[in-house]
This record gives sequence, structure tokens and C-alpha cells, in this order.
Amino acid sequence: MTKFIFLITTLFLSLSALFAEEGMYPLSELHTIDLQKAGFKISAADIFNQEAPSLSDAIVKLGGCTGSFISPQGLILTNHHCAFRAVQTASNAEHDYLKNGFMAAGREQEIEAKGYTVRITQSFKDVSAEVLKDLDAISDFAERNKTIKRRRKEITARAEKENPGMRAEVAEMFKGQTYVLFLYTYLKDVRLVYVPPISIGNFGGETDNWEWPRHTGDFSILRAYSAPDGSPAEYAADNVPYQPKKYLNVTPRGVDENDFVFLLGYPGRTYRHRTSYFTAYEEHVHMPFVADWYQWQIHLLEDLGKEDRATALRFSATIKSLANTEKNYRGKLRGLGRLQMVRKKRGQEAQIQAFLQKDEALQRRYGAVLNAIKNIYDEKTNSAERDYILSYLTRSVSALSFANTVYKAAEEREKEDLERESAFMNRNFERTKKRLFIRLQNFDLQADELILTELLRKAAQLPKGQRIKSMDRLFSLNNPERDWQKAIKQAYDDAKITQKDFLSKAFQQSFEQIQKTNDPFLQWIQALQPDIKALKEKNERQSGELSKLSAQWAEVKRLYEKNTFIPDANSTFRLTYGHIRGYAPADAVYNFPITTVAGILEKHTGQAPFNAPDKLRQLIKAKAFGFLQSATLHTMPVGILYDCDTTGGNSGSPVLNAKGELVGLNFDRAFGATINDFAWDESYSRSIGVDIRYILWLLQKYAGAGYLLDEMGIDHN
Amino acid sequence: MTKFIFLITTLFLSLSALFAEEGMYPLSELHTIDLQKAGFKISAADIFNQEAPSLSDAIVKLGGCTGSFISPQGLILTNHHCAFRAVQTASNAEHDYLKNGFMAAGREQEIEAKGYTVRITQSFKDVSAEVLKDLDAISDFAERNKTIKRRRKEITARAEKENPGMRAEVAEMFKGQTYVLFLYTYLKDVRLVYVPPISIGNFGGETDNWEWPRHTGDFSILRAYSAPDGSPAEYAADNVPYQPKKYLNVTPRGVDENDFVFLLGYPGRTYRHRTSYFTAYEEHVHMPFVADWYQWQIHLLEDLGKEDRATALRFSATIKSLANTEKNYRGKLRGLGRLQMVRKKRGQEAQIQAFLQKDEALQRRYGAVLNAIKNIYDEKTNSAERDYILSYLTRSVSALSFANTVYKAAEEREKEDLERESAFMNRNFERTKKRLFIRLQNFDLQADELILTELLRKAAQLPKGQRIKSMDRLFSLNNPERDWQKAIKQAYDDAKITQKDFLSKAFQQSFEQIQKTNDPFLQWIQALQPDIKALKEKNERQSGELSKLSAQWAEVKRLYEKNTFIPDANSTFRLTYGHIRGYAPADAVYNFPITTVAGILEKHTGQAPFNAPDKLRQLIKAKAFGFLQSATLHTMPVGILYDCDTTGGNSGSPVLNAKGELVGLNFDRAFGATINDFAWDESYSRSIGVDIRYILWLLQKYAGAGYLLDEMGIDHN
Repeated sequence: MTKFIFLITTLFLSLSALFAEEGMYPLSELHTIDLQKAGFKISAADIFNQEAPSLSDAIVKLGGCTGSFISPQGLILTNHHCAFRAVQTASNAEHDYLKNGFMAAGREQEIEAKGYTVRITQSFKDVSAEVLKDLDAISDFAERNKTIKRRRKEITARAEKENPGMRAEVAEMFKGQTYVLFLYTYLKDVRLVYVPPISIGNFGGETDNWEWPRHTGDFSILRAYSAPDGSPAEYAADNVPYQPKKYLNVTPRGVDENDFVFLLGYPGRTYRHRTSYFTAYEEHVHMPFVADWYQWQIHLLEDLGKEDRATALRFSATIKSLANTEKNYRGKLRGLGRLQMVRKKRGQEAQIQAFLQKDEALQRRYGAVLNAIKNIYDEKTNSAERDYILSYLTRSVSALSFANTVYKAAEEREKEDLERESAFMNRNFERTKKRLFIRLQNFDLQADELILTELLRKAAQLPKGQRIKSMDRLFSLNNPERDWQKAIKQAYDDAKITQKDFLSKAFQQSFEQIQKTNDPFLQWIQALQPDIKALKEKNERQSGELSKLSAQWAEVKRLYEKNTFIPDANSTFRLTYGHIRGYAPADAVYNFPITTVAGILEKHTGQAPFNAPDKLRQLIKAKAFGFLQSATLHTMPVGILYDCDTTGGNSGSPVLNAKGELVGLNFDRAFGATINDFAWDESYSRSIGVDIRYILWLLQKYAGAGYLLDEMGIDHN
Repeated sequence: MTKFIFLITTLFLSLSALFAEEGMYPLSELHTIDLQKAGFKISAADIFNQEAPSLSDAIVKLGGCTGSFISPQGLILTNHHCAFRAVQTASNAEHDYLKNGFMAAGREQEIEAKGYTVRITQSFKDVSAEVLKDLDAISDFAERNKTIKRRRKEITARAEKENPGMRAEVAEMFKGQTYVLFLYTYLKDVRLVYVPPISIGNFGGETDNWEWPRHTGDFSILRAYSAPDGSPAEYAADNVPYQPKKYLNVTPRGVDENDFVFLLGYPGRTYRHRTSYFTAYEEHVHMPFVADWYQWQIHLLEDLGKEDRATALRFSATIKSLANTEKNYRGKLRGLGRLQMVRKKRGQEAQIQAFLQKDEALQRRYGAVLNAIKNIYDEKTNSAERDYILSYLTRSVSALSFANTVYKAAEEREKEDLERESAFMNRNFERTKKRLFIRLQNFDLQADELILTELLRKAAQLPKGQRIKSMDRLFSLNNPERDWQKAIKQAYDDAKITQKDFLSKAFQQSFEQIQKTNDPFLQWIQALQPDIKALKEKNERQSGELSKLSAQWAEVKRLYEKNTFIPDANSTFRLTYGHIRGYAPADAVYNFPITTVAGILEKHTGQAPFNAPDKLRQLIKAKAFGFLQSATLHTMPVGILYDCDTTGGNSGSPVLNAKGELVGLNFDRAFGATINDFAWDESYSRSIGVDIRYILWLLQKYAGAGYLLDEMGIDHN
């Protein structure tokens, strides 16, 4: 028997090696895949087609997530964690939708998902030539970087003018090399339809986050609305459900182990083409700083939230977001260490250098590129602690963040629109303000004060030569008798910047007025500007230089590997495919790729995050699975695992079968797979989804929301 | 493919259900097993035989562990953790055998394993009638209990007199019902031969303890010595290797998944026949108190040992032992909760009560038994916190433990030998003293003071009605102005009881002299006596009553179930059998039953407890496995998992194949299996061993101890 099991396992792995492959294919690269051979039973035109409705028309970018239309009336399926901020914003201690879940009994009860927008990719076009034209003439790297940015804005502005109502974006596919213009339909009225209680939608919480086997019902249902004429519009009472060009067929038949699947969505960011120096900087400098700093904030917010549900609710989305990144970084750090990624990249780079040295012309042209990249990361490393403290001052401290936004808004809004920082351009400014006001809703004076204090404590400990001069001066950090605590306390007592009315007015004032405004945080921000601006200028210069060097290094790699690459993820539309597949996470362990409701009962402790609702546990024990029961497992599936190539941003991506029918909802990766942002490998790259049968069963039996199944066209009687 | 895997897994489970069964069979019950049907290829006479050498002659009880002879020259194979205390005692900061391991290049280099003895079971005989004769005439329960104890001592003394040089023991098989006299060969000179470094012998440490998959090389090799004439003797330079009647054949062929295996050994204690009231007391009172108290001590000792290797070494065995129990209890507590053990036992008991009520005579005779048992556990529960504090005072605080031992020794030694507490009888007294002096070697004033302080703090918080009067008086615990810290400090400054010479002399003094001795701890112990004695008397009474009631309840259960039982483990010789078998620890997870060296590289972090030696990792990477490589796995196996029925005390038990050849070395159970002390079940009861091939390979390639393989008769050239 031993031999059989081992044989079968080995067989799996060899089969996998045949079928799964790295790749988040952009639309422009779909033609390079042999779809039939890969396992698709549909054509490229079924996936993307500018002439007729295709699957891509059913896929939406929803903030940093993905979603998909699953009904002709604009119903959107996405993750619970993607709708989390909207649910939290709609909740209060009285109506605790986060805890209890939410179901709109009818359209009129659907709640605005504040700050949420929806984008649907309509077209794409390579604009690299225009972006990069005559760039070599610019020797100043900061100037070079600003030029690229300005040209991207110009092309965007022109495209939006030529296509009224659409949203445009020029995405960087390869740093300093390839730029693509995307056009999007852009909807601004999104509403909550169904949200499970957090004890289902986030079952397992941070303990299970990034883990497999998984039993989280991480889904929510939203609906997009448009003006009565079908055109995009801001939230309004008389808006009507948006009718998408295409919506996905939801199939209650689900999937089995080894079935072919593919995903469509908007993966955020990967770093596979970066050098060992970037990777070492991430491993030893950037990620450790951020993980520790986030962990410190998580502990603080959890402590402060212990006594009071309203406070806890206010912190919940922030904690969730910090914890998600923190654990993701810990997973990456572990993976980078275990896989000796930097050492491996160094080895490859040494081979490439040896290759260059064999050819005098190549060596002259490219020989110094890698070392120049190294020098930039050395420079970044030297001042990293200092630079992070300064930049988190206006990110982690809400009062300073508000002041900075108001200050920059006033300053930038006096410039030409195209010259402004992106957040303050006309097309983005309303959204920037909206986000600020949502953050204001969750403002907590005590937490903010403690976070500021901690950053000042860090700044006070910086070594000579790395001091942040404006902070030293402002808070007397060099003075051993300093009493910054008192100054901070006073500032929060006197603060106007944390008041809604003040902020609304402030956004209408001129830069001159703002500079004179008598608010302690605005004045601090003003005093900090020399350092903030110097840092920004340094970043521009480094980005500009890296942009040029990265393009050169990519040329070298193409010469060496005689191959083309798929660009790293950059929040644009991508396709990835693979199979429902288990894996061996450790010696002597095999994880099956489909979990079942049995695991919910096993994990249930009664204490959050393992507190499955009584009703759910009763339904499981009653085995009332009906037509949604898996024919092969003879029970209700919950989670599915597959070897597709995903990253953050694929949250909410539909998992589709060979025919393009929806069989699952992507929401996470296995812990070992977080490292695939740096390097993909079939043995450890596994993504996690909710089985559609579990979602449909919860809607039908747990929520009693049969009308939603009706709307999806599913016969459930 | 899905179906295959699931089918095979299902098949496993059904096969398992057929083949594995609960049971730690005592020698007296071997005849009830159909050996051939079970899978043995040997007969009962091959296992135990008073007329001729048999396997049981190769099995030794080694302190609280098991070991087995593996050479004609008295070589004993047991666990690293079983030899741990001996290795620690032989180590110092200069010769750190714990850290670096130990190998005797020749016989003369073998080191005394201080305090270690070896027992070999020679015969057994039921003596229940003599122990229980006319017991019903004794109505006082404390008296009843003392009578049973005295009769067991009398029979023991008589047997040892009739069999000079042998060790006798009257073991309680069923409380108040069945007593068996065992005769043992008893060796007192045991020496260390080979000990791997702790980074192999305890690889994974407390993190992996009670866990599967496992990669710990938990083995050591000792040697028993006798006088030159072959008779048992204390350690002496001219002793010679003991020549056992029988030693085990070690087979380098190892095992495969699903192979039949059996274990022989001395399992310590199980509680499967106890009532729900005992189980509830363990779950809610006893184990939580002990687990928390041990955890507190572990944290303390770890903190104190951080700075200095010598201190850390002194604490190492104590920490290991505390942590082992602590995690075992946590596992049991989780299991009791998950399996709802108390609720299930209550259900069975209710059925038995209903069964009794149907028969008036039975009801009259047994109807009140269960409630009487309940009353005892209620009484125990009420004063548990108080009683535990008092009893841990003379167990956890070394200075008080020494004082108590000296005090009791003087008091008891003035009685007739048979009237003494067991530890102070002539046959045990030398061992009692030896153990005390070993503990003295590890005495740490600072730790002891802090442990005493913590217990006083606990005592001071006891509610009215539960106060320990002698402690209140002695340490002024009721006085809010109390300054016990100062008194403690002074006592440790003045203490003589922690000095070796003082202790040696004290053991020779009369009770009167001891009572007058001017040592603070001796005087404290004297002042605490009223409470210590009252507690002892209460325990005698409760034990006496439980002894009678348990016997009655067992009768009821036999009537109800119409069946005989196998007695709970009680440190006497037992056999258990089963198969090399994986399991599903959680939904969607399958654990294979054989781990490999790949897992050592996976787990290695370079930091203890996952710091595999460089040499080992190089050997693994070089795949230099030779004739010991597994033919089915094509690599070196490390750990094996099987569904045999074991508990603490089976540590060091040989794992034998159907022919009785040694294929592994038992050392642990899976975490979920700790609960099998309360109830055995094929689905979660799994024991863990070291694969013999890994042991032989380490000896051959890592240690270069080929001469040990020669001694075992293994051809390795």
C-alpha cells in the first residue's frame, strides 16, 4: 500500500510539473498561450473581445481587489475582506453588520459601500514609444522620472478627453521599457447586498490567514448602480442596477481534485524580475521594518479595543489590514530565508556578468549596470530607518496625515492639473477627500497620540548623521530635558484638523491661507516640509535611475536567456491558469486541495476567531446539503486550493472552470506561497478560494436568501 | 485521481479498524490474544517463558522508562530523554555531554549513570486473595487503605527474602480487586556508552514534543554491569558487562507503512476505567493547576538560565521534565474538551444506573456506589487549591523537600521496616538518599527562593475556610504588614540543609536530634507537620474509600457489559500491537507514518531546538545512506508512527516486527493521542518511534561508532 500512495503522490507532482506554469498573463500576451493544450474549452475571443461581450466584461477592479458580475442586474461577487471597510463604515455598536452580517431584504435596503468604485477593462494599447521618446537626452535622474510621470498623465488626460465618462491609466509593464494605456468603464455607486457574519466571513481570523487547510467563507455580495440611462454616476437614490455587458455563469456543480481552473483579475504587485539587491533590501531592511512597525500598532489597537465594542469596531478594518500585511511579510521573510533567494539570484547574476565579460561590446554597454543598481540599494539601506520614520509620520499618524493632505492639496491645487501629484489632480481629488473623511470616521485620539509618541521615540534614537532635522527642532528631540509628551497632548487638545467641518473648509482654502492657519498639526507639517521634500526628491532621483538601469538589465537578461518574459503584476488585468491541486507542505504531510464542513466543527472552539454560528453548526450536523453536496466527497466542500499564479489584488477573483463558469472565489494564498511574489514554483505556489457550492449553500440554507440564487439563475427548489 | 486517493485513505481507515485494537496486555492476559491472527509470527512462549530465555528477558525497566538489551554484553537501547538526567549529571560547562553528545571509545571510558537501575521481569503471581482477606471487616477507610499497603509490603518482603538478590513488587491491577506479585532481577550499575548531541537527540525540542511529523533522534545507548560473578552489584570499578539471558536481534531492514509491529515495555499509568467524576476532576481541577504551576516554573527557570550556560545546564533536566508534563496535560485537556469525554462517560454511567434500577437486588447493593464516588471528588475539589499548594511546598521547593526528607527519614526509620513509608524502608532508603543528592547537585538558591515566594503568595490568597493554618502562622500570611521576603532571605542565608555534609550527617541522626536541629527549613517543616499529616490522613481515607468503591463499580461494569477488561497501565510489563500507520489529524490533511531526513533539512533553522549539526546535514545532503537506505522511500527514514497502545513509561520500548526483531525505538505519542490515557481510539491513538535504520546510520556515519554495530552483530562493511 505504501508504494501506491507514494507512487500516486509522485505522479501528482510530475503531472503538475507538466500542467502548471508561472504566469500572470496580461491581455496582450493571451495569444502566446496554447489555450486548448493548457486545458481551456473556450477561445481567446471568449476571454477578451473589443467587438463583442466577453468574460473580461464581467470582471471588475474593486479598490485593491477583484470582483465579478454574477447577474444581469449588476450583482458583484467579491471577498468578505474586500467589502470589510464598507461593512465596518456602515456599522455601529447598534447595527453591528460586521459581527452579525447584513442582508438586504430588497433593493431599497442595499447600503452604500462608501468610497467603493468599480472599473471594467475596455481596451489596451502600447504607448511605450510616446512615454520614452528622447529620454536619453535627460541626464538628471529626478528630471527623467518626472518626465515619464508627466507623459503618462498627458496620455491619460488625452484618452479621458477622447472617451468621455471612461477612466484611463498608463500602466508600467516593464520599468523604463513598456507602457500600456488602459481604458476602463468606471462606476461610482456600489452597494452592500449580502455580508455573512464575521464568524463565517473571517472564520479562523488572523490565525488561519495565509494558511491551508482553510474553512473561511470569505465572500460578500455587492451591486453596482448606474444612472437611469445606464451611464456611470455618483451614488443617488434614483440610480438603477447596472446592467453589465456580460455576467458569469455560476455553476452549482463545483470542482474536483485535478480539475483545470483559471482566474481573471487584477493582481497587485510582484517582484520576480528584480535583482538580488532589491531582494536583499526587502529581506533585510524594508519588510522587517514594516512588519515590526505594523505588529507594534496591532498590539496597541488590540489593547485599546479590549474594553469597548465601539472602539474595537472602529479599529477592526485597520487591524485586519495591518495584520494581513504583517503576516504576509513574515511568510515572505521565512520563504526568502529558506529558499536562499538572495544567494540564488546572486549566483544567476554572477553568471550573467560572466556572459557579458565574454563580449567586449556588451561588457562596455552593460557591465556597470548591476553595480549601479547595488549602489542605489546601498544608499537606500543607509538611510532606511530614518526615511521610514519620516514617511510613516504622515501615514500612521492620522492627525498628521490629515494635515499633510490638506497642506499638499492647497499647494498642489495651485499648479496646472497635469503638474500635480496624482492624488490632487481633478480626476482623483474627490476620491482623495472621500478616503480622508472615511479615515476621519475611525479617528481615535488616544491611539493617534500613542503612535505619534512611538515614532518620536524612534526618531530620538536615530544616530548622528541620520537625524531628521525638522523633527529634532520641532520636538526638541536632542534635548535630554525634552517634554514632547506635553507638547503632543497640547496639540491634540488644540487640534482642529480632526474636525470634519474644519477639514471641509480647509480643502477650499488657498495655499497662503493654509500656511497661516492656526492649527498645531498644520504648522508641524509646514515645519517638516524641508525634510519631506528632500526625501521626495531623493526618491524621484533613485526611481529615475532605477527606471533606466532596470530597463538595461532587462535587455541584458533577454540577451542572456534568449527569451521573453511576462511582466510583473501591476494591478492591471491578468489571466492565470492551473489545477485544483494538493501539496506536501512538509516531510510526511500531504494536504488535500478541498476542505469540507467537517473542518469547521473540528476548529470550532466557541471563541473568536473559531466561533462558527450555532445555526451553521446545526445545518452541518444535519447534513442538509441537498443538490449542492459534492458527488465525490459526499459532503459540503468549503475551501479549494489550486496552483494558479496569484498575488494580492487577486482577492475576489472568480475561479473559473475550463468552460469559463464560476466554481470558486479566490481570497488567499498558502503561507509558503507568499514568497511567490519573488519567485513562483509549482511545489509551493498555492492559492486558496471559497468553493462556490459553500457560498450558494450559505445563501440558500443559512441566510435564506434564495432570491439571490434566483437572480443568478440557479434552480434551487 | 481524486477518487483513488480518497478511496485508498478510506481503505486505510477501514483496514485499521480491523487490525488495531486497544490493549496494554499484561503477561497474565497474553493467552487471550490470537497471536497468529493478530499478525505475530512468534508464539506466546517466545514472548514470555519462565523455563527458557524469551523476549521479556531482553526488556528492562529503567527508572520511569523502558529499555532493551541489544547485545550479549549488556548493551541497552533506550531514549535520549530517558538518559537525559544521567547525561546532565555527568556534564559540566567544561564537559558538556548534553550539548556535544558523548561516546565512550572503550569500556573503561563508559560513565556511571548515577541513580539509574535496571529491572527485568522474572515471574508474576496473583496475590489478590491474600491482600484483600477479611477487608470488609474494616469500616474505617484510612485503616483499610493502610492495611492493603501493609499486606503488599509483607508479601514483597517475604518474596525478597525467599529470592535473595531479586526485587519484588505487589502491583495493583484493578483498584481494590486484583494484586499481582512480580519478581525482578535488579541491576544497579548502569553506564553511559553513547549519547548523541542534544541537537539530534532532542531535535525539535519542546516545539516538536508530542507532535508528528517528527525528526528527533531520541536514543541513547547504555550498558548494564554486574559483579564479576554475574550477580547484581552497586557500581564498582571491577564490575563486568552484564550478560542478559536474552538480547534482541536488531534488523537493519526496518519497516514499511502498514507493517505489523508490537511493543514490550512498562507503560506508566492510564485512567480508562475511571468514572466521569475522576475525569471531570482531572479536567477542571488537577491538570489545569499542575499545567499552570509547571508553566510558571518553566518560565522562571528559563529566564534565570538565559545568562549562564552552567545555570542553564543545571536547570535543563528539570525544565524538560516540567515541560513534558505541561504539554502532555495541555494535550489531554484539549482532547477531553474536544471529545466531550466527561459528557460521554456521564451518559454511559446513566445507562448503567438505569440497568441497576431494573433489578432490586443489584440496586440495593450497587445503587449508591457512583454517588459515593462523586462525593469524594466533590470533597477533593473543594480543597484542591489549598491541598496542592501544601503538597507542592515540599515538592517544588528543594530546601523544603530536603528538610522534609530528612525529617521523615528520622521519624520513619524509628518504626518497624514494614510500617515505614515506602521511600524509607531498608530496600529503598539508599535510592531515596541518592536521588536527594542528585537533586542537591542542581540546587539553585535564587530559583528556590522565588518558587517558595510564589507558593506563599498563592497561600496568602486562599479564601477563609481553606487557609493552611501552619503556613499562615509561620509566614504571617494574614498580616497585611507581613515581610515574608525578609524571613525567606534570612532562612536561605542561614540554611544548612542545602549543604552536602550536613545532609549526610543528618541522615544518621535520631528523630529527637533532628527535631532539635537548628536549621530554618527543618524547623519550618516541623511547624508544618500538623497540616502535612492531616492532609496525608485525608488522602489515606479517600484512597481507602475509593479502593472499595472502585472495586464495586468494576463489578457493576462487568455485569453490565458482560465482558472482562484489560487493567489500566500501572508500570508493570505489558505488550501492545498494531501497525505502522498514518492518520488524518485534521480535515484535508493526511500524515504519512514514516518521516525522512528531508524533514531535518526543512526544519533546520540554525537556532535551537532546530539546529541540526553541520556534519549531519552534510551527510544527509551527500545521501550517504548505504545499506541502511529504505528500499521503498529511497532515502533515510527518521521517525515511525504506529497505532499501538502506549503511554508514558513506554519511552524506550523496542518496536518489534512480527518475528520479534527490533525495528524501532518508541519515544512519544502524537499530541492528539495524549488523550488515550483516558480513552483509546484507533482514529487518534498514534505512538512515535525512531526508525532503527536512522539510529544505526547515526552510529555508523555520524558517530563513527562502527564497533557498536559489530557488538549488535550487524555487518556494516
